Amino acid sequence: MTTRQDCLSLDAQDPLAPLRDQFALPEGVIYLDGNSLGVLPRATAARVQQVVAHEWGTDLIRSWNTAGWIDLPQRVGNKIAKLVGAGEHELVVADSTSVNLFKVLSAALRIMQADAPTRKCIVSERSNFPTDLYIAESLSRDHGMRLVLVEPDEIAQHQNADLAVLMLTQVNYRTGRLHDMAALTKAAHEAGGLTVWDLAHSAGALPVDLRGSEADFAVGCGYKYLNGGPGAPAFVWSHPRHAERFWQPLAGWMGHAAPFEFTSNYRPAPGIARYLCGTPPVLSLAALECGVDTVLAADMQALRRKSMALTDLFIELVEARCAGRDLQLASPRQAAQRGSQASFAHADAGYPIMQALIARGVIGDFRAPDILRFGFTPLYTRFVDVWDAVEHLVQVLQSGEWREPRFNQRAAVT
Amino acid sequence: MTTRQDCLSLDAQDPLAPLRDQFALPEGVIYLDGNSLGVLPRATAARVQQVVAHEWGTDLIRSWNTAGWIDLPQRVGNKIAKLVGAGEHELVVADSTSVNLFKVLSAALRIMQADAPTRKCIVSERSNFPTDLYIAESLSRDHGMRLVLVEPDEIAQHQNADLAVLMLTQVNYRTGRLHDMAALTKAAHEAGGLTVWDLAHSAGALPVDLRGSEADFAVGCGYKYLNGGPGAPAFVWSHPRHAERFWQPLAGWMGHAAPFEFTSNYRPAPGIARYLCGTPPVLSLAALECGVDTVLAADMQALRRKSMALTDLFIELVEARCAGRDLQLASPRQAAQRGSQASFAHADAGYPIMQALIARGVIGDFRAPDILRFGFTPLYTRFVDVWDAVEHLVQVLQSGEWREPRFNQRAAVT
Repeated sequence: MTTRQDCLSLDAQDPLAPLRDQFALPEGVIYLDGNSLGVLPRATAARVQQVVAHEWGTDLIRSWNTAGWIDLPQRVGNKIAKLVGAGEHELVVADSTSVNLFKVLSAALRIMQADAPTRKCIVSERSNFPTDLYIAESLSRDHGMRLVLVEPDEIAQHQNADLAVLMLTQVNYRTGRLHDMAALTKAAHEAGGLTVWDLAHSAGALPVDLRGSEADFAVGCGYKYLNGGPGAPAFVWSHPRHAERFWQPLAGWMGHAAPFEFTSNYRPAPGIARYLCGTPPVLSLAALECGVDTVLAADMQALRRKSMALTDLFIELVEARCAGRDLQLASPRQAAQRGSQASFAHADAGYPIMQALIARGVIGDFRAPDILRFGFTPLYTRFVDVWDAVEHLVQVLQSGEWREPRFNQRAAVT
Repeated sequence: MTTRQDCLSLDAQDPLAPLRDQFALPEGVIYLDGNSLGVLPRATAARVQQVVAHEWGTDLIRSWNTAGWIDLPQRVGNKIAKLVGAGEHELVVADSTSVNLFKVLSAALRIMQADAPTRKCIVSERSNFPTDLYIAESLSRDHGMRLVLVEPDEIAQHQNADLAVLMLTQVNYRTGRLHDMAALTKAAHEAGGLTVWDLAHSAGALPVDLRGSEADFAVGCGYKYLNGGPGAPAFVWSHPRHAERFWQPLAGWMGHAAPFEFTSNYRPAPGIARYLCGTPPVLSLAALECGVDTVLAADMQALRRKSMALTDLFIELVEARCAGRDLQLASPRQAAQRGSQASFAHADAGYPIMQALIARGVIGDFRAPDILRFGFTPLYTRFVDVWDAVEHLVQVLQSGEWREPRFNQRAAVT
């Protein structure tokens, strides 16, 4: 079995190891929750301070021009585009993932209602992230469509004449299961439908190829693997073949062809810019840009290789060292079928076990009803962190400390 | 005529004068654009830095609980509620003004379609801010309604049996004209319709009484008179009688009754919380809270008195000292009918005159096609600033320096 010394050796040989210096990691913490909130890049504090004190404080309204605030959604969007296989000027940063999903799913439904009005099904995964399902539920009601929720292995049988839109999160937030974007998009297109992809757990975590997969629409999150900070703005992409087919319904002034003409009639901007809506959140966009830069500093194929090695190692060590402790692997066993996380189910005590780990400084999270979720961010997670995290888990389970009442007190946010 | 010495005396007697110390105002600038972007409060830089370095950087994901991130939309919302005559727990901070307008106008239209389906008109002001008109145009198309744009003195004749929703910005962004919220709401209700108010240029600028006016829905902006920073999040209010009648269509997870149960079906939160959508932008919310606190430090009636005195003085001085220079007052002459701004139209040269003023450090803005717009923020604008701004305007017009080619080069943002 792999030893702690082996892990130290792996770190010593790791070509990505220097990238950890990009981050301000707290002492005494093994952070395995970058899939919920990425850590703080070192560059961010100074950059945000510059925006606050200089661009806002001193230059005030002039910074829309002089500091290029007005171009931030496109500038940061073009950087994210490189991480997800999108072209230049095809992707913008705006709003939240939920709001952007509303925009692209609306557009996809309008396209299908125009081109194939008999198709009435939005197909998604039953365990897709709830906000995606809620937005789809809302739109399906308003568009006279049906939201059909299935298990992953039932998707194929719903790629049929009823399919309007296949809406999936590429990496499942609970299990980390990775969908084959190219194959599922191809099947959806052959069935006559469109695809909408949520990249919340894949952008910045693994190579994504939107154009190569011929995907139709995508959205994604700025505060997970892109390290943009709590509640960072999200992004939205449309394949150019669809971008100008319809208004998206959130027709705000920043999506207008000429916002500063202040005309009373909406005239959508060309291309993806029409997916902008209100005034962009400059402080948050500046922080997001710092986060995206930390990912652009890495080779995405190398990140993926390390990610698979980290999660393989974690699963190997947990299964070997916690055998008989009622932990069941909830992620695919094959690394190629996983995102950058490993989840274990514990039928009775997932919540308190995770709280006990957090009290020891090993930060993962719990996802109801039974999932202990561990995210691995190869930019800053070391092999020795994996070893030490498992050692803490072993101690938590052996000591039974998770039975302490304080670990069963539910917090507002889990 | 009022002299510069008179202005210095007015400042010396001004009980609000100490509040100016709340702000980090740049040297050499007379800032008359707080109606576009409020200035930086002194408290903001340190607070944002605390959020970045400590809450995010050190405490990471735990800050959702330990730093109360999850409650920020309600906490800051309750503070703004005090400024606009809303009750506790009736108002939340979320998204942008445009997105929030989409939510409340959707809700208003759904209510009318349920209660009075023959009513098909959304009535608004032709010179309402464009994003409001674009969102209304988008929703009217999708709901089979008509958007009817009228002049302010034509509103009364459209308070009739066709009226579904009267949607107005309380203070017009170009002219500063102030609508009588209580009277127009009463007339709309008597005609059988609902009202949606945009408080972008009134929240923090003058006393607003949403509950006393019996208004139905409202939205507003965080980065103008609330000093929340560039692109700060916006706010949304519903009268409690409407808050739970319908889903709003942007049914994201933060508007769910129990987001951390991660259920696959949407169950809207009670009250205004269902108007939340995605994950809240924490950095921007923290900055907004600092801005709102600067306004809460003042008595709103005293702010309004000073605001009226500032704009009266500006108009008096411009009309006296720039007579014969083709500047026409574009704001109501009666202070009681104005918000906290004064606008002048110049048929030929509004843009270069404003650029020449900005080059001198007198920052207002230009609104196409012909408006020079000057915002007065009594929290930090002094009477002597008014005098000095007019002196610069006199010099710009007398010297003809605005004819220099550099002042005619249009920037991306005006």
